[in-house]
Amino acid sequence: MNSAFKNERTIYLGIDGGGSKCKARVVDEKFRVLGSAVAGPANPVHGIEQAIESIQSSAQMALLAAGFEKNDISQVVAGVGLAGVNLPSLYQVMQEWQHPFKRLFLTTDLHIACLGAHGGEEGAVMVAGTGSCGYIYSKNKTAIYGAHGFPAGDKGSGAWLGLEAMKAVLLAQDGLAEATQLTELLSAKLGTKGLGLVEVMVGASPRKYAQLAPLVIEAAEKNDAVAVGIIRDGACYLSMIARKLLADNPARLSLLGGLSERLMPWMDQDVVGRFSSPLDQPEAGAIYFAKKEMEFWRAAL
Amino acid sequence: MNSAFKNERTIYLGIDGGGSKCKARVVDEKFRVLGSAVAGPANPVHGIEQAIESIQSSAQMALLAAGFEKNDISQVVAGVGLAGVNLPSLYQVMQEWQHPFKRLFLTTDLHIACLGAHGGEEGAVMVAGTGSCGYIYSKNKTAIYGAHGFPAGDKGSGAWLGLEAMKAVLLAQDGLAEATQLTELLSAKLGTKGLGLVEVMVGASPRKYAQLAPLVIEAAEKNDAVAVGIIRDGACYLSMIARKLLADNPARLSLLGGLSERLMPWMDQDVVGRFSSPLDQPEAGAIYFAKKEMEFWRAAL
Repeated sequence: MNSAFKNERTIYLGIDGGGSKCKARVVDEKFRVLGSAVAGPANPVHGIEQAIESIQSSAQMALLAAGFEKNDISQVVAGVGLAGVNLPSLYQVMQEWQHPFKRLFLTTDLHIACLGAHGGEEGAVMVAGTGSCGYIYSKNKTAIYGAHGFPAGDKGSGAWLGLEAMKAVLLAQDGLAEATQLTELLSAKLGTKGLGLVEVMVGASPRKYAQLAPLVIEAAEKNDAVAVGIIRDGACYLSMIARKLLADNPARLSLLGGLSERLMPWMDQDVVGRFSSPLDQPEAGAIYFAKKEMEFWRAAL
Repeated sequence: MNSAFKNERTIYLGIDGGGSKCKARVVDEKFRVLGSAVAGPANPVHGIEQAIESIQSSAQMALLAAGFEKNDISQVVAGVGLAGVNLPSLYQVMQEWQHPFKRLFLTTDLHIACLGAHGGEEGAVMVAGTGSCGYIYSKNKTAIYGAHGFPAGDKGSGAWLGLEAMKAVLLAQDGLAEATQLTELLSAKLGTKGLGLVEVMVGASPRKYAQLAPLVIEAAEKNDAVAVGIIRDGACYLSMIARKLLADNPARLSLLGGLSERLMPWMDQDVVGRFSSPLDQPEAGAIYFAKKEMEFWRAAL
């Protein structure tokens, strides 16, 4: 065992498990970062075993990067934030995992993103990435808006933008809607056209649709009427979510996700004026969460 | 070998292979129905092996029902209409199948539906079922509108109606859109509510979404504003498709598919006045197709 553990200090592990990757961070009691690592997908909605595998391997790599040994995993207090565990059935399955940690505290990806964005304090966040949603966490209220998954939810997200673009291109191809620059942009990106577009997108994942989103923003920035219509519709939904969150007076509100910067100019400017920059990453939020839970647990003894 | 074959008459087999079932019909040269049968799904988009298995077993059952033996399958001339083979890659894979028939003539599900609806003659059809599309087949023009698959295409279809209903219910649940009777109807149908609706519809197939469509029509018939808006939007698309087809003056136009009767009242009435009832089923169209191809092939010898 590494000397760090002999000192009886608590070592914390923060895990941010998402649909494309799993991020891990190891810190000491004073939140000093000792090591970090990234592994594969960890969204239990798309497979419990894969999620567990990604959590374990990212944790072990982060521990090694921090100078610990693999077996030291049994000594760490882990905070784990996962997509999908807002669904009760998945939360329970993940809670039943015979994990290798000293303690595991499980919560949603949104909860840790919020704690990370606001330095462990209360607040609200919105996400505009592959998916979309809003989340507020405070003494008075905890609520999620959206986060219903693609294609029924996730309006204004990258996946939604990509799907709406495909719809518009297919309608124009049939002569049933106005022509759009999106036809050329999507054809160039996907390396095919006409029915070929349908073929390469059959059964496409939200992530694959989201890869088309930058083209929609690009076309809208060039004043393509169809793309502008799509983006405005999506941004209007995001503004509605923001207003819903602001109605409960969160201490801070941050817009997160890969599309946040590019979609912000399309949102209502009174709402955009209320956004604060996120202070840290979700994996830091997972550590704040674990530390608070651990203190609560110790106090209860 | 059965005596029918000793007479050197040609026996025709018509196959209508769709996403939920595969229908087979055996007829003699005068189109007299000798037997028919139904087997499982046969859409090659969802699995080549399953499609082939369903085609073979429906064919064998129809032959047995017609008084032939299993092995007589090697004597029949088969016309096979399949969803998905408008995509060149799937057409080729299916063409490479080492089939058990004397001859196999392959075409699209739309082509055989059109031939069936118009007694083997030229014309146009529209489909409003789990999916949606329009198709015209004439000397001057063969064209498909829609048929792009769910969720990017299939506007106005059962799957699309179900998805739009889910979206509306989830928005209303978040307080981001007006309340709708659909909330109660969907909850009753799916036996759950709130986040439970999301859970049971995660990754749902087009068919599963389409099972919600009758509720949307029901709610619209009760003047639910949200349901009316959804149906009108979908029916408007179907009317546009009809106009597109009518612009090429087809001899006849038929509206097919499980939702045709219930959606017709929502379509533009000038368009509805142009619909003719289908004369026969798609599997009959597959036989018309095979017979014509066989005559063409014999003439070329």
